[in-house]
Amino acid sequence: MIGIFDSGIGGLTVVRAIENLIPDVSLLYFGDTAKTPYGTKSADIITEYSLRNCEFLVSKGAKILVVGCNSASSVATEIIRQEFKVPVLEVIGPAAKRAVSLSKSGRIGIIGTRATVGSGVYEQQIGMMNPSCRIFSVPCPLLVPLVEETWTAKRETKMILRRYLHPLRQQQVDTLILGCTHYPLLKELIQARMGRKVALIDSSVEVALSLRQLLSRSHPGTHCYQPVQHAFYLSDITKNAQKIATRLFGRPLEFLSP
Amino acid sequence: MIGIFDSGIGGLTVVRAIENLIPDVSLLYFGDTAKTPYGTKSADIITEYSLRNCEFLVSKGAKILVVGCNSASSVATEIIRQEFKVPVLEVIGPAAKRAVSLSKSGRIGIIGTRATVGSGVYEQQIGMMNPSCRIFSVPCPLLVPLVEETWTAKRETKMILRRYLHPLRQQQVDTLILGCTHYPLLKELIQARMGRKVALIDSSVEVALSLRQLLSRSHPGTHCYQPVQHAFYLSDITKNAQKIATRLFGRPLEFLSP
Repeated sequence: MIGIFDSGIGGLTVVRAIENLIPDVSLLYFGDTAKTPYGTKSADIITEYSLRNCEFLVSKGAKILVVGCNSASSVATEIIRQEFKVPVLEVIGPAAKRAVSLSKSGRIGIIGTRATVGSGVYEQQIGMMNPSCRIFSVPCPLLVPLVEETWTAKRETKMILRRYLHPLRQQQVDTLILGCTHYPLLKELIQARMGRKVALIDSSVEVALSLRQLLSRSHPGTHCYQPVQHAFYLSDITKNAQKIATRLFGRPLEFLSP
Repeated sequence: MIGIFDSGIGGLTVVRAIENLIPDVSLLYFGDTAKTPYGTKSADIITEYSLRNCEFLVSKGAKILVVGCNSASSVATEIIRQEFKVPVLEVIGPAAKRAVSLSKSGRIGIIGTRATVGSGVYEQQIGMMNPSCRIFSVPCPLLVPLVEETWTAKRETKMILRRYLHPLRQQQVDTLILGCTHYPLLKELIQARMGRKVALIDSSVEVALSLRQLLSRSHPGTHCYQPVQHAFYLSDITKNAQKIATRLFGRPLEFLSP
């Protein structure tokens, strides 16, 4: 059983990516909608919430933990690894690695929440992989509310994206990390604005690829003999969360209270 | 000592209004920034958080409670009144009363968060005061993040306001309740869009007027003999919260952890 948590429903893009790549594993999702968003909160509070979420997932039988939230991955991964004995995957490392391998010019852009960008974790990880890369990061705090309002095709959203992406265009990045699980829903608008030559890295897909690698290395085939069964928990089940979840996930989900 | 709570720092507009009208009372503020915003969450969760906030304020010596948050006022006031023996003021009733007394055409508009508008509480209260009023309400969930990004003069904000206010202009309301403590920061843009003839009701000012009335009736002058001393608590103290607080309040504040 793979346990995934996110500050809300954004991490469902990670679930979807895992389902696409590894259709034979069972997933346990916890979305902390009672405290969403994490991205505007402090590292201490995000860490406290993340540890509580992992405890819940492990108590429900998770054998691998996936931090399906960039903000939590940025500030809480190390402490989660210290506190829990199970393997812990997060969304920053795999995306950083892919960006370094794809970028030709070494000019890499990052967009994310205030917490993610403020943590400097992408800079740190990319710097360790290839110190010659130049990294340009922009906090985009309005994109999560815009996605949650399903304003993904509105003119206002295009204008706000233009403003946010302007410095990254000026810096001529050739690779852009979508450092928030909500952003894949804006992928087409972002691609159109950045130009077809800029490679967009989807952190949800990258962490799913990492998970597949981990499973094939350490648990080859063990999970195939279990019937696939997912469970989705939200700490606050609202109509709007269900609506956005359907949009993010591509099909309606039945949510449980923890 | 007057205790005020809000989901975050928006309630500081209530503190400011009270300070302006009643400069001789001491205020105790609690902003639940660790769980902000409330406006997108369920009534159950908002109620749970509100009760916890009131407990904190009463434990710190609050003798009157002010629910400085429209979302919490909408769904939790009744339960707070049941649970606590002190007088409880909230931001809905005073604004509704003012709107009914000011509106000539009886066509009243309301803008607020999803929780506030979804609760139908303004309709209910105005309906009881004057059943012939026609009420038109629009949830404006992007306005809080826009104010929190200090995008209060940006073109994008004007465009989003235009979209939100369009149905209220069409319905020719003559009175508009700013049903969220963040909105006074957008007052000029809203006034410009609605036209000078539309009366805007600021729920922060109205609750401060109510409080003044309550004090002059039930505690005449008792508070004048205490030295004025305010205290501001946030459940999560971030740089950004401090920045927005300074903007909302008009001067920098020193925040304490509860």
